[in-house]
Amino acid sequence: MYNITLPSDEVPKHWYNINPDLPIELPMPIDGEGGHQVENLPIIFTKAVLEQEMSMERYIKIPKEVRDIYQRIGRPTPLFRAKSLEEKLNTPAKIYYKREDSSPAGSHKLNSALAQAYYAREEGVEKLTTETGAGQWGSALALACSMMGIECDVYMVKVSYNQKPFRKTVMELYNSNIYASPSMNTDVGRKINKETPEHPGSLGIAISEAIEVALANENTKYSLGSVLNHVMLHQTVIGQELKKQLEIAEEEPDVFIACVGGGSNFAGSMYPLIKDKLDGKIDAEFLAVEPSSCPTLTKGSYEYDFGDTEGFTPMLKMFTLGHDFIAPSVHAGGLRYHGMSPQVSVLAKANVIKPVSAAQEDIFKAAQLFASTEAIIPAPESSHALKIGIDEAKKAKETGEEKTIVINLSGHGLLDLQGYSDFLSGNLTQ
Amino acid sequence: MYNITLPSDEVPKHWYNINPDLPIELPMPIDGEGGHQVENLPIIFTKAVLEQEMSMERYIKIPKEVRDIYQRIGRPTPLFRAKSLEEKLNTPAKIYYKREDSSPAGSHKLNSALAQAYYAREEGVEKLTTETGAGQWGSALALACSMMGIECDVYMVKVSYNQKPFRKTVMELYNSNIYASPSMNTDVGRKINKETPEHPGSLGIAISEAIEVALANENTKYSLGSVLNHVMLHQTVIGQELKKQLEIAEEEPDVFIACVGGGSNFAGSMYPLIKDKLDGKIDAEFLAVEPSSCPTLTKGSYEYDFGDTEGFTPMLKMFTLGHDFIAPSVHAGGLRYHGMSPQVSVLAKANVIKPVSAAQEDIFKAAQLFASTEAIIPAPESSHALKIGIDEAKKAKETGEEKTIVINLSGHGLLDLQGYSDFLSGNLTQ
Repeated sequence: MYNITLPSDEVPKHWYNINPDLPIELPMPIDGEGGHQVENLPIIFTKAVLEQEMSMERYIKIPKEVRDIYQRIGRPTPLFRAKSLEEKLNTPAKIYYKREDSSPAGSHKLNSALAQAYYAREEGVEKLTTETGAGQWGSALALACSMMGIECDVYMVKVSYNQKPFRKTVMELYNSNIYASPSMNTDVGRKINKETPEHPGSLGIAISEAIEVALANENTKYSLGSVLNHVMLHQTVIGQELKKQLEIAEEEPDVFIACVGGGSNFAGSMYPLIKDKLDGKIDAEFLAVEPSSCPTLTKGSYEYDFGDTEGFTPMLKMFTLGHDFIAPSVHAGGLRYHGMSPQVSVLAKANVIKPVSAAQEDIFKAAQLFASTEAIIPAPESSHALKIGIDEAKKAKETGEEKTIVINLSGHGLLDLQGYSDFLSGNLTQ
Repeated sequence: MYNITLPSDEVPKHWYNINPDLPIELPMPIDGEGGHQVENLPIIFTKAVLEQEMSMERYIKIPKEVRDIYQRIGRPTPLFRAKSLEEKLNTPAKIYYKREDSSPAGSHKLNSALAQAYYAREEGVEKLTTETGAGQWGSALALACSMMGIECDVYMVKVSYNQKPFRKTVMELYNSNIYASPSMNTDVGRKINKETPEHPGSLGIAISEAIEVALANENTKYSLGSVLNHVMLHQTVIGQELKKQLEIAEEEPDVFIACVGGGSNFAGSMYPLIKDKLDGKIDAEFLAVEPSSCPTLTKGSYEYDFGDTEGFTPMLKMFTLGHDFIAPSVHAGGLRYHGMSPQVSVLAKANVIKPVSAAQEDIFKAAQLFASTEAIIPAPESSHALKIGIDEAKKAKETGEEKTIVINLSGHGLLDLQGYSDFLSGNLTQ
């Protein structure tokens, strides 16, 4: 069986909240310099997600309408066996991948976007604001808002806005408003544009603009696509489905692998299985793969830091490269974040999960091998997990071990073809 | 139930050949001016597909390995209920769509590409040559050859080659060689380049180049992605799956809709259901939708014509706009063909199916409505079927009829975003 599907009614009824099961109690967010950042949270976020952020309930009910829409967009996503890749590698290992690339927004991001847009509409919010770098989160929130019938303003880092015109097209097609950031809509943006008219923008500035708009306008809230606990929570539909699918396949995997940027892909696909490890039911390894050019978990320090460059957010205890860290412009834009989910940071600190890193050239090589055998063109982000998965399968070939490897394929690469083009023509930097 | 999946082992075991069931006997291909075109067919094509081309067997066994690979790439594809679209239209009609967009090559084209690449490899062929305009067929054959371990040369119309660099990236990623046509590899190409150095190319020239290479080289054959009977045949896995899925949904649809260019998408998704109509078992309408700018079935004449511009192919009895017809450069490049599958032509001639046409502006409007409700960005080709499907649902609203409408969504539009961008900015021509 290459394709393990689940019927629509197997979409989970609850999200799994790892907070009560963490091996170290999660440190609370605190105010930083200049700030009432914690106090501002209820103005910025919807009530529902702030409650979820702090919740110690292990299972949180998925609202009926959100579960219904998960079904409409094709959840549960399939679990595939990578038989053609295994044959090409001539490995005794079995490789499985969970297909979040099959989401219509192109990645797992839609799972949280739909939940956040739903809560916003239920609370009478008319518009959500957000930032986007690579464009995956922006596309997902634009689509979610369109499906829920509310407005969406996306602040897109100016350099990406200019380099990736088709991401803008996707978001506009989903009826949202896209602004190149720094924009002329906000004090932050106007100030920067005045001082540095050619400023290329940054994720930090885009976050600040989106938050400023939410702070200044009635019925407008801000929405974030990673890092925070409630985003990790919403993504756990992936891991719950995966667990059922592995039972159907009668597999007890040895290694689980997912890429990490802010943490939501790793958390969502892995938490329900990490719970089994914490409960002593399984003894698998969990590998969190990040780019070697933005080595938050492998080389960062575990300390309080801001979530954005400008210091508008509270300080979070997390692995961080420093909020003024400028990640090189690698093609896996979704993994270029200086910090890390506080929950994922705790799991790394407690050695429940193992961080590893991969270099850009290597992840594109793995991606091409995967595409030419398994047919799917993976997102550069997801290719970090593929690279390490392929390494594990090669090791198994050497040792003869019949290992079972599970990879979360977080998204497809059809809107990232510039990266592939640079790779094929030998023009990758880094 | 929004998502009707079938398990892997429900991939059909046979293709359905409509030849013995056609209401008018299919006229044979004949030589045209200058020609031994019919005689050349065995040099150009593999034995297996030429046999299938003429076969009067109703069911042709799918080779075990091809069926296995159909399963590996995710067949059967799901059938979705367009509940969010229905709600937006406030129609009593039920709308279903078959998701060929979920194929890893982005469209239904892979179904025939895999079969053709398999037969080629089995017959000791080392390389397949083909042409591509919009790039969907080229991507599918490149992937199929990569999975079967043979070489692939794609002649891509020069203007598309320059306008769609990412299609080239996709094909290169799948290990194939891409040449802008007219190229310097062939007599045809060299002659044109000498006479008209800035020639933009055409599908006719690209076909001629690909055929010339197949004629001139040992162990090299040519592969075509539409029009011919064997291509229609391979696509019938779609319609057979669809039939089973409609039984599960307990639906007896009133209207079936698919777009037509050369005919393979329409044929593949509809033949198994058209058989039921020919057998008197169902009484549904079958709508074949073409662009109003390339109205082969609605305005062409039914006569013998060449399949290509240069007259290298035999003459086929079909609806045609003339082999020198230059279709305007609309964004649905896959539907810009002057002729039509001889089988589909016979069905139109016998009024078994009903041809209709749609204008470019309207199909993009339908596409945006579909994307913002059902989440998937459809290919411009497929959006022709969506436009007519939405019209049917609106009619049902007026009459109050609880009609069931089934659309084949032949592909996604993630590599066609220039068209969407032109649409959104009001820059569509035609």
